[in-house]
Amino acid sequence: MHEKAQRHRVVVIGGGFGGLAAVERLKGADVDITIVDHRNHHLFQPLLYQVATTALSPSEIAWPIRMLVRQRPEVTTVLGSVVGIDRATQVVELEDGARLPFDSLIIATGARHAYFGHDDWEPYAPGLKTLEDATAMRRRLLVAFEAAEREGDPARRQALLTFAIIGAGPTGVELAGAIIELARLTLRDEFRSIRPEEARVILIEAGPRVLPNFRETLSAYALGALQRLGVEVHLGEAVTEVTAGSVSYGGKVLEADTIIWAAGVQASPAARWLDAEADRAGRIKVNPDLTVPGNPDIFAIGDTVSLTGPNGKPVPGIADAAKQGGRYAADSIRTRLAGRTMPPFRYRHLGDIATIGRSAAVIDFGWLQLTGWVGWWAWGLAHIYFLIGIKNRISVALSWLWIYLTGHRSARLITFGEAGNTGSSEVYAPPDQRPETEKGRTPAVPGPP
Amino acid sequence: MHEKAQRHRVVVIGGGFGGLAAVERLKGADVDITIVDHRNHHLFQPLLYQVATTALSPSEIAWPIRMLVRQRPEVTTVLGSVVGIDRATQVVELEDGARLPFDSLIIATGARHAYFGHDDWEPYAPGLKTLEDATAMRRRLLVAFEAAEREGDPARRQALLTFAIIGAGPTGVELAGAIIELARLTLRDEFRSIRPEEARVILIEAGPRVLPNFRETLSAYALGALQRLGVEVHLGEAVTEVTAGSVSYGGKVLEADTIIWAAGVQASPAARWLDAEADRAGRIKVNPDLTVPGNPDIFAIGDTVSLTGPNGKPVPGIADAAKQGGRYAADSIRTRLAGRTMPPFRYRHLGDIATIGRSAAVIDFGWLQLTGWVGWWAWGLAHIYFLIGIKNRISVALSWLWIYLTGHRSARLITFGEAGNTGSSEVYAPPDQRPETEKGRTPAVPGPP
Repeated sequence: MHEKAQRHRVVVIGGGFGGLAAVERLKGADVDITIVDHRNHHLFQPLLYQVATTALSPSEIAWPIRMLVRQRPEVTTVLGSVVGIDRATQVVELEDGARLPFDSLIIATGARHAYFGHDDWEPYAPGLKTLEDATAMRRRLLVAFEAAEREGDPARRQALLTFAIIGAGPTGVELAGAIIELARLTLRDEFRSIRPEEARVILIEAGPRVLPNFRETLSAYALGALQRLGVEVHLGEAVTEVTAGSVSYGGKVLEADTIIWAAGVQASPAARWLDAEADRAGRIKVNPDLTVPGNPDIFAIGDTVSLTGPNGKPVPGIADAAKQGGRYAADSIRTRLAGRTMPPFRYRHLGDIATIGRSAAVIDFGWLQLTGWVGWWAWGLAHIYFLIGIKNRISVALSWLWIYLTGHRSARLITFGEAGNTGSSEVYAPPDQRPETEKGRTPAVPGPP
Repeated sequence: MHEKAQRHRVVVIGGGFGGLAAVERLKGADVDITIVDHRNHHLFQPLLYQVATTALSPSEIAWPIRMLVRQRPEVTTVLGSVVGIDRATQVVELEDGARLPFDSLIIATGARHAYFGHDDWEPYAPGLKTLEDATAMRRRLLVAFEAAEREGDPARRQALLTFAIIGAGPTGVELAGAIIELARLTLRDEFRSIRPEEARVILIEAGPRVLPNFRETLSAYALGALQRLGVEVHLGEAVTEVTAGSVSYGGKVLEADTIIWAAGVQASPAARWLDAEADRAGRIKVNPDLTVPGNPDIFAIGDTVSLTGPNGKPVPGIADAAKQGGRYAADSIRTRLAGRTMPPFRYRHLGDIATIGRSAAVIDFGWLQLTGWVGWWAWGLAHIYFLIGIKNRISVALSWLWIYLTGHRSARLITFGEAGNTGSSEVYAPPDQRPETEKGRTPAVPGPP
C-alpha cells in the first residue's frame, strides 16, 4: 500500500522562458521534475537593455528559479552546469560529476551572441545576454561620459562620446534609443565640460532596413523615430573590422570608444552535448514534434533549435516562441503518459514589438499595427503584464513612471566585478593592485578601489 | 566690468555623508567646489547589509554624486583616485596626473575594514564597505545554500550552512538577524534536501556584550532578540584564527564555509597623503577646529579622523558624526571668507540605532529608548527619511513592506564579477575559462558562464 511506483522523471535544462513554461504546463501531471540551470535566476531578457542603460536594476528583471517553483514540491531546482547528455542511458551529466537520469528531457538552453567568425571582436564590441553583460555595459557607458568630462583633446573627447551599435534588430534599436536619451535627457546639466549634444549614437546595419522582422512601413516609422531622437542610422553597410576604439563599415573608419554588438546569436552547445545535427548557428535541427532525431524522449525548444514555421519562415528566437515550445513539450509528455500522441508543433506568431526611446514603439500584431505613444503605452503595459509577481510589476512601473516624468534613471551605478575585490578592500589601491576591468582596453578613468 | 576675481576654490575628497553635507552647507557661498571620488555614487552605508542579505538592490541605496549636485553649477564632480596632497602648494594629486589646486580642502575619505594585523584573514572573512562587497557577500550566502542542497555528506552540509559573523557591533548584529531570517523565512519551502532550520548563525564578539556602544539594558535586549531569532551569540571570546572554512575562538574551532568580518575599521590613507600624525587605526589627529595641524586650510572629517567628543569619549564613526563635521567645515570656510572665525567643533551625539530582524530594533536617543516593534518602525521610518529622493524612498518602503508581508526578498541574485565575463560570453564555459570567483576558496557549485 505504501509503496509508490517511481514516477516519470522529467529533466528541464534551462530556466528561461521555454523551460519555465514547460514546468508550469506540467503542473498536476504525474511526474517528478528537475530544473537545471547554471544561474540561480530566471531573466526577463526583453528588458535587459534597460539594465544596460540604467533604467532598471538587475533584481527588477530577475527572479530566483527556486522561488518561482517553491509551491511545487515535485519540482527540484539544481544550480549546476551541464557538460553532456548520454543519449543511450538517458542521463544528464553535470560538471561536478553529478548525473541526473531522465525519462523525458527538455533542452531549453537558449543562445548567446555570435560574431560570425570574428570572435576576436568580442572584447571590443561586447554583446548583451546576461545580467553581468548588462552591468558591464552600464559601466562602459557611464565611464565614457566621465572620461570625456576630463578629456582635454577634442578628438579624443568625441571618440569617448561616440557610441556605435552594430545590428538594428530590436535589441540594437532599443539600445540606440535608450543611450541617446540617457545622454540628452538623463545626464543633462550634470557635466561641466562636455555637453550632452556632443554624444553621437550610431546604429550600423548590414541589411537594408531597421527591424528587418517587421513589415516595411513599421521599419520606416522606426527609422524616422530613431532619427528624430538624434540617432545616426547607417543601413546597408556591413562592419568589416572592429578594434579597441574603432569600427570600420562601408569604407569608413569610425572612432568610437564604446561599441556594442547586437548583430547575431548562436545557439547553446546543446547540439554538441547530443552530437546532433545543427545548422550554422549551432541550432539543433529538431523533428516537427520538437524531439531530437533518434531520441523521442529528448525535446529541444526555443533559441537553441532550428525550426520552420507554418508560413515557411524560420520560427524566430523570441520569448513567445520558446514558451510555445515549452508548453508543447509539456503537453507531449502528458499525452504520452496517457497513451496518446500529439500532432506536430505549430508555431503561432502573435506579433513583434520594439520600443524607441520613451515615447515611441512599434507593434505589429498582424491584424493591428501600433506606433508612437499609443504603441509605447501598449508596449509598457504588455511588459509589465509579462513580468512575474506583483512586487516587480510595481517596481518596474514606478521606475518607468519616474523616467517618464523626470528623465532620471535610478540605476546609474558604476560597479566593478566584485570578484577581484574580494581579496582586497584597500580604499584607494594603487593601480597594480586593481582587478582587471575590461579586456583589451585600459579604462580612461581610474579603476575600482 | 566683465572681469571676475577668481573665487575661493574648495576641494572635497569623498562623496560620502561628510563630503556631501559640506557641499550642501556651502550652497550660496562665494566658492567654486570640486568633489573628487573614486566612485561615481554616494552610498547609504547603514543599509548596505540589506543589499548583502538580498533585501534591497544596490541602486536603492546609491545615487550618482553628480546627479545630487546637478542644480549647483558651481560644483564640479570628478571621478578619480587621489594619490597625494601637496600641503605646501595646496594641490590634490590624482592618479592620472591631474592636479586640483585648492584654497580650502575637506578630506572626507572614510574608512575600510581592518583586520588588526591579520590581513591574511581577509579572503576568508570578507567585510562590508562597498556595493561590490555587498554583492559578493550576497553571492557567498546564496551559493552556500545551493551547495548545501547538493551536498551528500552531513558534516560538509552543516559547514556549508554555518554562518559565522565576527564582531557584534551594529553591522554584525544586523547581519546576524538578516541572515537567520533569510534562511528561516525567505528560503523556507524552496529546498528539497536541506531544511532551513539546519542553518546556524553564530555571532562572535570579543567584548562582554553585543552593541557595546549602547547602554547595557539595550545590549541585553538585543542579545535576547537575537537569541529568540535563533542566532547563537558567543561573548567574551576573541577570534584567534581564520582559515578557508573555519574560525577559531575561545579554544574552539568552528567549521563554517561563510565567515563575515564586522569587527573593525581602519581609516583611509589620507594621513599618509598628508604625512600627518595618525592614531593606530590610521585616523588623522585633527585640531579642535577639524583642521590638520600645520595646515589651517585643510579640514578632515568623519571616519578618517580621530577626535574626542565633549563627554571625553571618542566621536563615533557614524554617518551623523561625519555630517556634523562636514557642516562645521563648510561653516568655517564661510565665516573665514567673512573675516571671522568659528568656535571649536562640538559633536552632538543624537543617538544610536540598530535593528535585529524584521520586528525588533533598539534605539537610544539618550532621553528615550525604544525596543521591539515600536523601535523597528521608528528605525524604518528614520532610514526612509534619510534616503535621498522620493523614488528611492518609495522603492525601499515597497521592498520592506513586501518582506514584512510575505517574507520574500526581491534581490536574491547570484551574480559574478562581470569583469572576467566581458571577454567571454560562452554560455557553458569549461571551468578553466572562468573568472576567478573567490580568492582562497573554490566555490562548491559551478562558477559563472
